[in-house]
Amino acid sequence: MPQLHLHLLSDSTGETLEMIAKAALAQFEGVEVVRHFWPMVRSQQHLDRIMGEITRNRGLVVFTLVNPEIRIQLESRCAEAQLPTVSALDAVTESLSRMLGQEQLHRPGRQHQMDEAYFARVEAIQFTIAHDDGLLWEEWEEADIVLAGVSRTSKTPTSIYLANRGYKVANIPVVPESPPPPALYRLKRPMVVGLTTSPDRLVQVRRNRLLSLNQAPETDYVDKERVDDEVRYARRMFADNNWPVIDVTRRSIEETAAAVINLHNERRIGQAGTKPV
Amino acid sequence: MPQLHLHLLSDSTGETLEMIAKAALAQFEGVEVVRHFWPMVRSQQHLDRIMGEITRNRGLVVFTLVNPEIRIQLESRCAEAQLPTVSALDAVTESLSRMLGQEQLHRPGRQHQMDEAYFARVEAIQFTIAHDDGLLWEEWEEADIVLAGVSRTSKTPTSIYLANRGYKVANIPVVPESPPPPALYRLKRPMVVGLTTSPDRLVQVRRNRLLSLNQAPETDYVDKERVDDEVRYARRMFADNNWPVIDVTRRSIEETAAAVINLHNERRIGQAGTKPV
Repeated sequence: MPQLHLHLLSDSTGETLEMIAKAALAQFEGVEVVRHFWPMVRSQQHLDRIMGEITRNRGLVVFTLVNPEIRIQLESRCAEAQLPTVSALDAVTESLSRMLGQEQLHRPGRQHQMDEAYFARVEAIQFTIAHDDGLLWEEWEEADIVLAGVSRTSKTPTSIYLANRGYKVANIPVVPESPPPPALYRLKRPMVVGLTTSPDRLVQVRRNRLLSLNQAPETDYVDKERVDDEVRYARRMFADNNWPVIDVTRRSIEETAAAVINLHNERRIGQAGTKPV
Repeated sequence: MPQLHLHLLSDSTGETLEMIAKAALAQFEGVEVVRHFWPMVRSQQHLDRIMGEITRNRGLVVFTLVNPEIRIQLESRCAEAQLPTVSALDAVTESLSRMLGQEQLHRPGRQHQMDEAYFARVEAIQFTIAHDDGLLWEEWEEADIVLAGVSRTSKTPTSIYLANRGYKVANIPVVPESPPPPALYRLKRPMVVGLTTSPDRLVQVRRNRLLSLNQAPETDYVDKERVDDEVRYARRMFADNNWPVIDVTRRSIEETAAAVINLHNERRIGQAGTKPV
């Protein structure tokens, strides 16, 4: 398999760059890519150290450096070494610059400013962790989103993912033997979303879960008939309350979360997709 | 303040695109940007609906569409309406295509495949939630990273953020009155990192925390001398055990996490930054 060294340089956390690389690489297959991840490159000395590694592992250099001195240094040194470079954000930044009639600021890390939106996001994460798995249901009215679903429908990771995007999320397991607190049916502010999945898939996932916990794999928890009943009970609850339902059977966490955000946008403003910064 | 409508179209979750927009917008100021976020655009009908909204809110159209039919449709219809479009990932995808001697696949959502890495990440999130705040310390040896720090040094959100990037993280509050389980000092596999912050900042953050909980703002928890002692105690513990220390005083969660990842890379392979996909 051909191998490619991919050097990713950022003068901030490198998170955006990592996602760009992941999305772009997903469009190729049968290639072994060795990623070299270089965040927080903000000094000449740091760049010097990295250039040694880059020339030892020749490949493609992709960067999101906004500091012009470091950028020019990198570009000219790579040109000397005959290594291709790509500035990952130029197309978007340049269009914005034209549209706004403004030069870009060239200040690294500005997207990580600890502004109001930042603190709201941290609060969302804290809220979400404190309201996992039916905890503190007395405070559900403060949530943006409440996810309901039977065990192993990805409620927790989906909640956490949404929290990282700024939503305060609570989640509640749907268990026929133990009905949820009646407060669930009276929520005003939060959007309640039901998560469902195919019983076959659920039995599979739960069986793996029990194996990983070293527990006996033959209990009601993985009994096909019982699981059918459970899923039917949950679906009826969702329908009775007119909650939107997302089937997570073939969806990754990110895709489930994107579907939840779509529903939330539509509900919040009665016009899909508009969200002020 | 000038206003700009920014339309973000993706045929997948739109997460990468949202981060690109955030990073690029951070380089401009004094502008009011209204973001219109359109994820999962995979059909002609969906695009038809969106085009109505775009032409009603004229502005810049940025996209990460990989499906060529939808992309061509969008581009030609925006051209007709004299609206500028930018393809956010082209520079990187085209360079990769050249380097690899391969055409891109044009299949949306491939970065969200539920592969091994995906399930490892979900497991990391579940592990991290189960090991918040000193819980289940018997299992710490399974963690990649253990964060230690006094109350309100962002241990929990930093842990969650790292979990989203695939690291299994546990965290433990450092409290002089209640020493941590001795297991903490004997960990082999996990990297233990101490989080510290300036006592002044800590008093401030904690005071706000108490206010938000409607609790009396004058307790030991926010007493300057007590907080000084607490921070000193934590720093001594970190030094005695030779744990690397990160000062979070002026760092956002993302920046603290990037610093932790840097330390983890360096420790793991004795050579900063190299990480195979």
